[in-house]
Amino acid sequence: MSSNSKKVCILGASGYTGGELLRLLANHPGVEVVMATSREYVGKPVHYVHFNLRGIYRNLKFTDINLDAVSKNCDAVFLSLPHGVSLNYVPKILEMGILTIDLSADFRLKNPELYKMWYGFEHPYPDLLNKAVYGLPEIHRDELKNAKLIASPGCNATAGILSLLPLVKNNLIFLDKIVVDVKVGSSEAGSKPSIADHHPEREGCIRPYDADGHRHAAEVEQELSLVVGKSVSISMVPHAVGSVRGALASSHAWLTQNIDDVEMLKYYVATYKNEPFIRIVYKVPPGYPDPKYVVGSNYADIGFAIEKRIGRVTSFAAIDNLVKGAAGQAIQAFNIAMGFEETAGLLIVPPKPV
Amino acid sequence: MSSNSKKVCILGASGYTGGELLRLLANHPGVEVVMATSREYVGKPVHYVHFNLRGIYRNLKFTDINLDAVSKNCDAVFLSLPHGVSLNYVPKILEMGILTIDLSADFRLKNPELYKMWYGFEHPYPDLLNKAVYGLPEIHRDELKNAKLIASPGCNATAGILSLLPLVKNNLIFLDKIVVDVKVGSSEAGSKPSIADHHPEREGCIRPYDADGHRHAAEVEQELSLVVGKSVSISMVPHAVGSVRGALASSHAWLTQNIDDVEMLKYYVATYKNEPFIRIVYKVPPGYPDPKYVVGSNYADIGFAIEKRIGRVTSFAAIDNLVKGAAGQAIQAFNIAMGFEETAGLLIVPPKPV
Amino acid sequence: MSSNSKKVCILGASGYTGGELLRLLANHPGVEVVMATSREYVGKPVHYVHFNLRGIYRNLKFTDINLDAVSKNCDAVFLSLPHGVSLNYVPKILEMGILTIDLSADFRLKNPELYKMWYGFEHPYPDLLNKAVYGLPEIHRDELKNAKLIASPGCNATAGILSLLPLVKNNLIFLDKIVVDVKVGSSEAGSKPSIADHHPEREGCIRPYDADGHRHAAEVEQELSLVVGKSVSISMVPHAVGSVRGALASSHAWLTQNIDDVEMLKYYVATYKNEPFIRIVYKVPPGYPDPKYVVGSNYADIGFAIEKRIGRVTSFAAIDNLVKGAAGQAIQAFNIAMGFEETAGLLIVPPKPV
Amino acid sequence: MSSNSKKVCILGASGYTGGELLRLLANHPGVEVVMATSREYVGKPVHYVHFNLRGIYRNLKFTDINLDAVSKNCDAVFLSLPHGVSLNYVPKILEMGILTIDLSADFRLKNPELYKMWYGFEHPYPDLLNKAVYGLPEIHRDELKNAKLIASPGCNATAGILSLLPLVKNNLIFLDKIVVDVKVGSSEAGSKPSIADHHPEREGCIRPYDADGHRHAAEVEQELSLVVGKSVSISMVPHAVGSVRGALASSHAWLTQNIDDVEMLKYYVATYKNEPFIRIVYKVPPGYPDPKYVVGSNYADIGFAIEKRIGRVTSFAAIDNLVKGAAGQAIQAFNIAMGFEETAGLLIVPPKPV
Repeated sequence: MSSNSKKVCILGASGYTGGELLRLLANHPGVEVVMATSREYVGKPVHYVHFNLRGIYRNLKFTDINLDAVSKNCDAVFLSLPHGVSLNYVPKILEMGILTIDLSADFRLKNPELYKMWYGFEHPYPDLLNKAVYGLPEIHRDELKNAKLIASPGCNATAGILSLLPLVKNNLIFLDKIVVDVKVGSSEAGSKPSIADHHPEREGCIRPYDADGHRHAAEVEQELSLVVGKSVSISMVPHAVGSVRGALASSHAWLTQNIDDVEMLKYYVATYKNEPFIRIVYKVPPGYPDPKYVVGSNYADIGFAIEKRIGRVTSFAAIDNLVKGAAGQAIQAFNIAMGFEETAGLLIVPPKPV
Repeated sequence: MSSNSKKVCILGASGYTGGELLRLLANHPGVEVVMATSREYVGKPVHYVHFNLRGIYRNLKFTDINLDAVSKNCDAVFLSLPHGVSLNYVPKILEMGILTIDLSADFRLKNPELYKMWYGFEHPYPDLLNKAVYGLPEIHRDELKNAKLIASPGCNATAGILSLLPLVKNNLIFLDKIVVDVKVGSSEAGSKPSIADHHPEREGCIRPYDADGHRHAAEVEQELSLVVGKSVSISMVPHAVGSVRGALASSHAWLTQNIDDVEMLKYYVATYKNEPFIRIVYKVPPGYPDPKYVVGSNYADIGFAIEKRIGRVTSFAAIDNLVKGAAGQAIQAFNIAMGFEETAGLLIVPPKPV
Repeated sequence: MSSNSKKVCILGASGYTGGELLRLLANHPGVEVVMATSREYVGKPVHYVHFNLRGIYRNLKFTDINLDAVSKNCDAVFLSLPHGVSLNYVPKILEMGILTIDLSADFRLKNPELYKMWYGFEHPYPDLLNKAVYGLPEIHRDELKNAKLIASPGCNATAGILSLLPLVKNNLIFLDKIVVDVKVGSSEAGSKPSIADHHPEREGCIRPYDADGHRHAAEVEQELSLVVGKSVSISMVPHAVGSVRGALASSHAWLTQNIDDVEMLKYYVATYKNEPFIRIVYKVPPGYPDPKYVVGSNYADIGFAIEKRIGRVTSFAAIDNLVKGAAGQAIQAFNIAMGFEETAGLLIVPPKPV
Repeated sequence: MSSNSKKVCILGASGYTGGELLRLLANHPGVEVVMATSREYVGKPVHYVHFNLRGIYRNLKFTDINLDAVSKNCDAVFLSLPHGVSLNYVPKILEMGILTIDLSADFRLKNPELYKMWYGFEHPYPDLLNKAVYGLPEIHRDELKNAKLIASPGCNATAGILSLLPLVKNNLIFLDKIVVDVKVGSSEAGSKPSIADHHPEREGCIRPYDADGHRHAAEVEQELSLVVGKSVSISMVPHAVGSVRGALASSHAWLTQNIDDVEMLKYYVATYKNEPFIRIVYKVPPGYPDPKYVVGSNYADIGFAIEKRIGRVTSFAAIDNLVKGAAGQAIQAFNIAMGFEETAGLLIVPPKPV
């Protein structure tokens, strides 16, 4: 590790997102992970929980959260804590002048009212909401360069936004009748066991949840409304499926104009042509994006289909929910904020088949 | 087997639907399977292909199709042949005065033009289309009693229609902006190996297909338009997922009126309260229908979710694509036409977990 | 339900084995389930937990255990309680003169010392151990006819014993060097969530457990030693795999004599030719037993392979761990003890594919 | 790409092993892939087949095999062709003085008689068999430094050898009664569709194959006999399971001496302590090696269990069959032969969960 590498802390390192931060940062050329916290596993080596990391981090053990130590040793902090917990730490870390990347929802929404509506609590730091930069480089790259607080997007929100961006931005669809039908693997539910995600119950399931309104819709509405300068309504309907990794957003919308595939493709290419992690899938096998082929990587595969006789378009975004949907995207934003190559540590090629 | 049991032939008995007909008819109290055809496996016992049937049909071997033998030995014929092949046999079997249940798409659509549009061929027997009864008991029970030719519905179509029936029939949704987002297991693709369904490629996938227009939309449009007496437009977007059995239709639509969950439930109950195979899932675990809990059975689990702030409703139907979506539904229609108890041979309780 | 049907209670009905008892007994022609207990779900309908049973048992709700009610209402009791809990109820139910079928390990072993060694407790009712009949009909059919207390076998033990019975009984293998390598789906671990069986951790795993000695070896040793009249040593090494249902025992042993496939087959046929639930797989597809093709059913598929150059034989038994490995086998033994047809309620044909 | 990078050709690049070579070499600091052949996909970009490689190799297209071009442009050739096909190319490439790494079985065995016995053909180049170096660095690292022809090991053989090496080398087990019970994911069967690996048939299966003798036993016997200087007999029994990646060898053997876990561990550590890709799993979660936690990586996780009362030891090796079992191991051997860092391109951290 070079002497001028950046020292990074991970608060909440024993969950799946924490584990992915550890996996990806292990190969980051400019980063040293100096702290990984977990109340439950204090004193255990990180591979005690993350079996994949056996032999990778030889001396890193879980500790309790200690903000003094953070203050002395860290150049940046990733918070991978539950919603409503992160916000207890973020203001203090910001005061230390340390780059703060929060992977929870606690600073994603600009409008504090939305926290009451979607998360059921009064936000205690409404002033910080506008200081936070929503960590989606495809929309906020410039602001991320000077960010002090990065609110890393939700996984379903990432897929929703990336699928709809070319359509909304170019006024190609009606903005009040959009359904984002999401299918997502079990790792999205986190590492804590539950009946719903117990293997016998989850394997092979196709199970809608939050079908009367999913909170990630709020992020998608916020970001797309911002982009187009008009109010966008999003109805998000997620479904638990039996894969482990990956989320697919199938965003169904109604076209404002007659447009064919070739023209549509141009809008997609124009939107994403300089993006290092967006890959457009157009009329080559397997036809449309499938999260299976981005597993473990920071890529988002994007595509679309038009049913002309009806005027319906569906735009697809396939991501690895733990990478582009969480840890990878957070590192991408961190790289931008820290002045690293945006792709540092993230040029992982997904395996196939997996 | 009682002496007055009905003698049944299965043309195309080596595929998955043929196998399910054999499985279900094995326990039918009034049926004897006297012929099971398969060009590829002539002379082999049925368990040579259907390993599950080992020891069940001790003397039944695959034969070639022989219409003379059909004519002499059969009271009813199930055709489980590819689209475009069935129609070569159906007219001849009908002429023999034998009850004909066709599980292909060849006689499902009333309008011959639609065969050109969706299936790419000119239908050679357009006059037979109106003689065929679409084999969905929930809509056509009375006509099935006198049916000579039953056109058994497609699996995605079955899920689509059953999910939307209460909404369309009661004018609760706009009829021109309906998206049926289907998720379906690999058995739907049939028993013939392909790259797309090779295990390493299919396992864990979430892969859209036919996203620019799926042919089962034609059946859904036909049946729902008939029910409501107005033109209904359906956009169907199917997705291959990594389970083996089961299809879930998530039918997204926009409400014509403000309606709450309790009122909506009444419409669902009213529509289905006398149906032996429809089960309504409403605010009990797991919350919404999941095909995992109907595997192997003829049940269709139906439910809905309303997002009031947006005026969107999603109606769900979960079926076993090979049972209520194919073999089971065909037997249900056969029972009605033959005068058996409608549920004969079909009272199978799905296992859990599976 | 006919007036002279037998009234059955299930103690511990909310787990997977309890659910399977409910599923199978729903179609039993001579049984009425009058009580299903679950401390956790008192007052809830059984389909609140067993979603598959929606609409099947319309009025059955979970209750607390109430031995008075058992005494008044039941002809037979199935106990599907944890090891060490069953034994608190069994003596009392026996005293009521009610047929008792215990699906735990509490009365499977004849030698009380083995409870200390394998289960870590002193057995409080050693005298009852010899009154219990080990509920494997393939060995103990005659004793089951007069049984009062049936100790239903463990799933891995069932697969182990059935695979080895033809070899041991006929002195075809050395009895001191037998390894039973078991692969088993996640339902075996029960319905209680755990990290090990959390979907993201369990899916796709191939994970040995109890590899330094699995307690089901004790049952296999007891039963096979009894059959052959010599001491048999069994080393059992189970592996968790990513399927939900099914267990395969691959029992590796060393031949005492040169024997070819055809001769060996005769021993298997001779052992099992009258067994209603044993199916022998010999040189037809898929080549060897696979639990995938017995899912949901009470069948055990049995086969073998000989490697002549080395003198090694492997005998395979594939079962559904929750059916022939638990609930189905318990009902089979109950049928024998009650004087029902042995196959009553159990003639379920497994679906394929599933 | 630096000007002095090594130019590499892959013959047979459209299969799974070819795809993995492409994935891993994409991140190799000293390699440029200049040719990737596939008869079936000539002219198509590599991501036409390997969807994961979209955007990775921007200009690499499949070509036909052209040995002239190989001769002019390549420093090394990887052959990922079927058994019996590789041997037509290997002698010619060797004559060009180009480092040849053959991933087929064609040059793994020293004794030409074994090709008749296990592969059913007379080897046409018996003299080359002794010039080939068996590409397992853990045994042949020194010879690999000067190798011209590397015969890369089979995946089941790799797992078998690595699991048994500490036991055999130290005379801890009887050498005539060893059973290697292998469980392996579907990617091992290759990319060509088949009924056996059609998703509906393969998913959730636990299916023995080649149970009367698996050809990889020949490699294990050869290598272990060489190490210990005595004849070793191996009985290998592979099982297809429903995961996609990963192989676990559970090698069952009988101890020659009383030995406890701590002593045994010392032998394992002594054998592997300097190996960059061997990780020993000993009494930490999840207890024993599981291929789930090496997916996508070149690691082999090794562990053991002793059942003292019986004198049985089982040694486990978990690998990714396509990486340490194929492409990764081939690159590891190539690195040694070429003088690269042995781990170049291979320091991939496996993701979890996946």
